[in-house]
Amino acid sequence: MKDMDSFAEYEVGFDIPAKPGMPEAEVQPPALVLDLDALERNIKKMGDYAAAHGMRHRVHGKMHKSVDVAKLQVELGGACGDCCQKVSEAEVFARGGISDVLVSNQVRDPAKIDRLARMPKLGARTIACVDDLENIPDLSAAATKHGTEIELLVEIDCGAGRCGVATTPEVVAFAKAVDAAPGLKFAGIQAYQGAMQHMDSYADRKAKIELAVAQVKDAVDALKAEGLECDIVGGGGTGSYYFESNSGVYNELQCGSYAFMDADYGRILDENGQRIDRGEWENALFLLTSVMSHAKAEKAIVDAGLKAQSVDSGLPVIFGRDDVEYVKCSDEHGVVMDQDGALKVNEKLRLVPGHCDPTCNVHDWYVGVRNGVVETVWPVSARGRAY
Amino acid sequence: MKDMDSFAEYEVGFDIPAKPGMPEAEVQPPALVLDLDALERNIKKMGDYAAAHGMRHRVHGKMHKSVDVAKLQVELGGACGDCCQKVSEAEVFARGGISDVLVSNQVRDPAKIDRLARMPKLGARTIACVDDLENIPDLSAAATKHGTEIELLVEIDCGAGRCGVATTPEVVAFAKAVDAAPGLKFAGIQAYQGAMQHMDSYADRKAKIELAVAQVKDAVDALKAEGLECDIVGGGGTGSYYFESNSGVYNELQCGSYAFMDADYGRILDENGQRIDRGEWENALFLLTSVMSHAKAEKAIVDAGLKAQSVDSGLPVIFGRDDVEYVKCSDEHGVVMDQDGALKVNEKLRLVPGHCDPTCNVHDWYVGVRNGVVETVWPVSARGRAY
Repeated sequence: MKDMDSFAEYEVGFDIPAKPGMPEAEVQPPALVLDLDALERNIKKMGDYAAAHGMRHRVHGKMHKSVDVAKLQVELGGACGDCCQKVSEAEVFARGGISDVLVSNQVRDPAKIDRLARMPKLGARTIACVDDLENIPDLSAAATKHGTEIELLVEIDCGAGRCGVATTPEVVAFAKAVDAAPGLKFAGIQAYQGAMQHMDSYADRKAKIELAVAQVKDAVDALKAEGLECDIVGGGGTGSYYFESNSGVYNELQCGSYAFMDADYGRILDENGQRIDRGEWENALFLLTSVMSHAKAEKAIVDAGLKAQSVDSGLPVIFGRDDVEYVKCSDEHGVVMDQDGALKVNEKLRLVPGHCDPTCNVHDWYVGVRNGVVETVWPVSARGRAY
Repeated sequence: MKDMDSFAEYEVGFDIPAKPGMPEAEVQPPALVLDLDALERNIKKMGDYAAAHGMRHRVHGKMHKSVDVAKLQVELGGACGDCCQKVSEAEVFARGGISDVLVSNQVRDPAKIDRLARMPKLGARTIACVDDLENIPDLSAAATKHGTEIELLVEIDCGAGRCGVATTPEVVAFAKAVDAAPGLKFAGIQAYQGAMQHMDSYADRKAKIELAVAQVKDAVDALKAEGLECDIVGGGGTGSYYFESNSGVYNELQCGSYAFMDADYGRILDENGQRIDRGEWENALFLLTSVMSHAKAEKAIVDAGLKAQSVDSGLPVIFGRDDVEYVKCSDEHGVVMDQDGALKVNEKLRLVPGHCDPTCNVHDWYVGVRNGVVETVWPVSARGRAY
């Protein structure tokens, strides 16, 4: 998708927000813009970290939903493959050429189980999670029917209080059931502690993950005693990967947001009490917006509202400006306080979205820029694939 | 799109959530489901109300972003056309056959102005709003360049504090400038009081709209004194249409949410202190979700999270159930408290979204059901068109 010709039939502003080769100033707002230099540095940095700590990195594709970003994470960041949360997403990554795909979630609906069982035919190693014994015969039957193999991780609830089993005996019983089922292969443990990733304090996060690590270690040891080796002990996010990497138990990371960053994640603090978006990770994702009314002297109205972003984790932050502030978000408008009247109509601002994942999910395209020029336009390949 | 054949090449679960003729029970969640009976009753009811009060109804397409729903509103509800908020949306409606389209917003970006000026060539009457004198020569030049006519409404800020001019002398000056500009036609006033629509109390809403009506009447009278007639005096939403309809000043309504309803709007009260979703309007829009984990006895985890809805105006409400409650929403999961263990894995629930507009904007399809059968599958035609 990197040459201009493939966009020849597309019209900027209707089909796509930009074309490769255009000056960044001509990108049609509101649009998602990726700072390619920052993105590549983030990807390389996490890849180097994982390699230095002997960890595989299975990047979380649910964040960006982009085959192109996933491939960059494989090529530049040494990622072993992708995880994602839905079968429909997994299919997009598998069809796009990612060869090792984990649905880090339960698959229960019969139609979705059938689709999962067909995924290996797309050429990808296919892995999913279980937290209910009754799920295992269904998955086994589908894999057998299609002559494929589904690998399964037993999901441990290590603090999020959502999906997953709670005790080591359950983990062992599930692993044995998977191991015994035709068409299935026991592949290890899924233990992502999602509930602590956004806690501001490093010490608070550390305390939570220590509980998780102890729980996972107990399960891994018990499995080993039964002759069941874990190829994958997976978990870890942008707010915790250093804990899992140094745990001696986990062997796969599943980070997502580090690549793009967002305002909510950026506020959490590292070991030295510094915000993680002030050194650890760079803001690579921006929501480009434009001033479309300034009828009130003190307020600029911009064209990115709720249809261009999700505000579930707070409002966006205007990048590189402390004289103006995005204070209110309605369906199609953002209100930016501009006490000094600094902004002009049609002036563009880069917003750092409050929460990257659901913000990316409302857009069809990423506009990749470098040195003020549009270098690439990538589809949000799995946008809307929530099923 | 109503015959099954047109979906022959689509696969349920990958391309579309359902096919016409399927039992509703087989719709692939999470998906937007429309109760067609309820939808038609809502549309007919508002159409009848507008007709009985001598009002045109320019339905707000930004809510549903669907050409099919807009056409139903024209055919069944007597709508005169659509309004929407972005040029890219307007183009979708115009291309889809809606013959009278208002962009109820400012159009400032040069590329968007150029597209707006080309819209009449799609066969649609093309109207937009202005709140800045400097916008008028740009619009005029574009219309002249393309040999088309853009009609313009002067937007009055009647309480929302966002876009729009504040005083009658400004309205008159703007109208005169539009009237004098080649390629442009002065068409009236846009005066939507958006800030009061969601106030719970009928009396509070009435007090706010009375201020707006007085302000608009003053402007209309001043324009008349200058020989400038307003073809359109537009405004009114689901929380206020009876006020505008009985104002003697407004002649066009711009309601959107009445057709689908949502949890946030449903909570506002009518004149008798009754919630508007308990008689005035029916819930016609549902987010179908499925239980995909019940590893915790007291919690069911469902498959509709932030990628399937917007929670900016609160969490969704489970329709027709008071024994279970949707209490938490993360990227891909919803946590449903199920103290009695009433729910089973793969059981489906109908959620009433917190806010319909941005929820519809993350989906690609509406599944129209009647009597337990999928009757139609409509694309969310202008999904993602936020530019």
